[in-house]
Amino acid sequence: MSNLPVSGARLWDSLMEMAKIDATPKGGNNRQTLTDGDGQARALLRRWAEAIGCSVAVDRVGNMVIRREGRDPSRAPVAMGSHLDTQPSGGRFDGVLGVLAGLEVLRALHESGTETEAPIVLVNWTNEEGARFSPPMMGSGVAMGLFEEAEILAKQDPAGAVFGEELRRIGWQGDADPAALQSLGAYFELHIEQGPTLEAENIPVGIVDRALAQLWLDITVTGEEAHGGSAMAPRRDAMMGAAQLVQAVEEIALAEGGRGTVGRLTVQPDSRNVVPSRVWFSVDFRHGEPAALARMDAALRQRAADIAARRRIGIDVAHFWDFPLTPFSEDLVAALQRAAEGRNLRSKRMPTGIGHDAVYLARRVPTAMIFVPCEGGVSHNEAENITPEWAEAGLVVLADAVLATANSIREG
Amino acid sequence: MSNLPVSGARLWDSLMEMAKIDATPKGGNNRQTLTDGDGQARALLRRWAEAIGCSVAVDRVGNMVIRREGRDPSRAPVAMGSHLDTQPSGGRFDGVLGVLAGLEVLRALHESGTETEAPIVLVNWTNEEGARFSPPMMGSGVAMGLFEEAEILAKQDPAGAVFGEELRRIGWQGDADPAALQSLGAYFELHIEQGPTLEAENIPVGIVDRALAQLWLDITVTGEEAHGGSAMAPRRDAMMGAAQLVQAVEEIALAEGGRGTVGRLTVQPDSRNVVPSRVWFSVDFRHGEPAALARMDAALRQRAADIAARRRIGIDVAHFWDFPLTPFSEDLVAALQRAAEGRNLRSKRMPTGIGHDAVYLARRVPTAMIFVPCEGGVSHNEAENITPEWAEAGLVVLADAVLATANSIREG
Repeated sequence: MSNLPVSGARLWDSLMEMAKIDATPKGGNNRQTLTDGDGQARALLRRWAEAIGCSVAVDRVGNMVIRREGRDPSRAPVAMGSHLDTQPSGGRFDGVLGVLAGLEVLRALHESGTETEAPIVLVNWTNEEGARFSPPMMGSGVAMGLFEEAEILAKQDPAGAVFGEELRRIGWQGDADPAALQSLGAYFELHIEQGPTLEAENIPVGIVDRALAQLWLDITVTGEEAHGGSAMAPRRDAMMGAAQLVQAVEEIALAEGGRGTVGRLTVQPDSRNVVPSRVWFSVDFRHGEPAALARMDAALRQRAADIAARRRIGIDVAHFWDFPLTPFSEDLVAALQRAAEGRNLRSKRMPTGIGHDAVYLARRVPTAMIFVPCEGGVSHNEAENITPEWAEAGLVVLADAVLATANSIREG
Repeated sequence: MSNLPVSGARLWDSLMEMAKIDATPKGGNNRQTLTDGDGQARALLRRWAEAIGCSVAVDRVGNMVIRREGRDPSRAPVAMGSHLDTQPSGGRFDGVLGVLAGLEVLRALHESGTETEAPIVLVNWTNEEGARFSPPMMGSGVAMGLFEEAEILAKQDPAGAVFGEELRRIGWQGDADPAALQSLGAYFELHIEQGPTLEAENIPVGIVDRALAQLWLDITVTGEEAHGGSAMAPRRDAMMGAAQLVQAVEEIALAEGGRGTVGRLTVQPDSRNVVPSRVWFSVDFRHGEPAALARMDAALRQRAADIAARRRIGIDVAHFWDFPLTPFSEDLVAALQRAAEGRNLRSKRMPTGIGHDAVYLARRVPTAMIFVPCEGGVSHNEAENITPEWAEAGLVVLADAVLATANSIREG
């Protein structure tokens, strides 16, 4: 346990101050990436950072890198970060908590005159949400070399505005190389859970040790059109085959302890009194263990074959996209566990099923995440809420883990 | 068993001759209502009818009424009929078989010099299919007083053509009152089954004794949007609730010996990695017994309530439309059974789950239908097919029942 005098109250005040920028009537924020509001939020963060003697650099895709030097400038920096942009009807905490908790750590280091061995860095990643410009996690994706910088700068929003032009318009295109962030020595991201588990189990700290592997499938069920007045026995009803297989998605996910979602479904010919000849639906499978994800895939294909044979219909299961399991750094996970224990905070190890900048960082940089509860698991919603106590729990674990890591990390 | 020398071969030749009008390359017909082809088909039928001394009257919605007088002109006519219009990619038998089998009965009466007590009438109903102008069964619906004549004449096709104008354009609006057809003494309609039952059971004649009662429902399942990466346990997944209830539609239909169809389904927000918050779908339930249909309704509502409670979601089951059971005439059904027995043809009593002009006729006129098998149950399709033997089986049963009824029917 460190003696770093981080202040939960000051963090909360900062959160509420930041929430004034592009506040919505229902208590949330509409501060989409590269809008004027995003520019104002960045400017406020810069003022706060400069007030405590930190340098602020900006790279070519707008990532803000706030830096406090360490005793040993040759050491790879220990980084914290998240994002200030929100969904169109977003909340006050998704992303912002991770950035401002990082700021509070820097403030406490500054005020207490604490020196660290490695430099400490705080990153505000550009366009994590992906609501205005797609894909999401753009700034971290470019920095980690997963997206082409030129391609990202040329992306357009639905109104035709170009990413690079908008970045210059709000004055936040710098000249730093985003790829320089690949040399960070460690990355910690504090985020709200965006799920109800921690609140339901009354656990203030989630220690996120991996990002789930994902498998997205396209399912096409082909039967035969028939009149709604025709006899049941001879039917080859694509809808009934699909309904069975949709249920299998849930059953398989529950049986393996993974996640299964059917978010889209279309019907042909789409008439009330016609037995459908074709149903298409999407499957999103996730699991923390690649082997289990492979079993889920195999189980669904087996169920599809069984249903197809029994119903004399066709079921095509096609691979659409996958995302490998992303393990986080065991060293950093251990640092978070020691920090939580040191503060006598209950914690649990858990995966993230949702994308975060940390998931891209983990491809190149030792990474771990901290989750704190959010009310009812609600996020991407103006009603998103957390308690000051939850914010503080995440803050102190972040602070202690960062400090310990910055003083123990070897040369980069 | 009558001695009426109906000719299956001549019927088949007439079917093939009629099929030349608006033939499609794949062996079907595209002879939609009130097109030039419909006009040509009507003209051919009129020539054939006049050649055997029948009168041809046309009413204000284009129904063609071909009449052969009986000995006793005060008796209510015994009618046969169906339709010459087809779906855009329709077959050569749906509708046409009933009209041309009726013509063959009239030809045999004419050639054999047979007199009947009651007049015999053959009706070609306008726009049974409803493919170009909606609703279907327009001519019979107006005649039986179920649709307003003026409203029907003002209907437009998707290209904006007006029904009444098209009827005049092809020269087939007459001045007879459609409602006069409510005074028919009996109505027989021969039709292909449009289902696979008779073929599968190797039965040449279906004696249709009722039209199924129908109940159409609108189901709205309301859950809560969640990320596809979120834990399963807290989800309130509208899609999974809907999939269970869709399956219940089938289970309930099978358990009651009715029919259940889910022909339409929509999803919100319709994103691959978002647990749906809302799923809407349609239910089409049919049964030959109103009490069983009511049980199907109740069973589905019970299942909906169970699923809603277990999954903590909302399920709204709303009445959209219903159609009462339409019993056919027991006397005419008995006449058909005697006719089939007299010809040593295997038959089975069965309901129709599908709308036909006969279903509207049955509201005002003693009615029964004859079904003959069709290959694979395929209809509304250029591949629609029957054998000459099936056509002849339907023809002889029709002929014998019409003759017996025309000689026994009391004054209208």
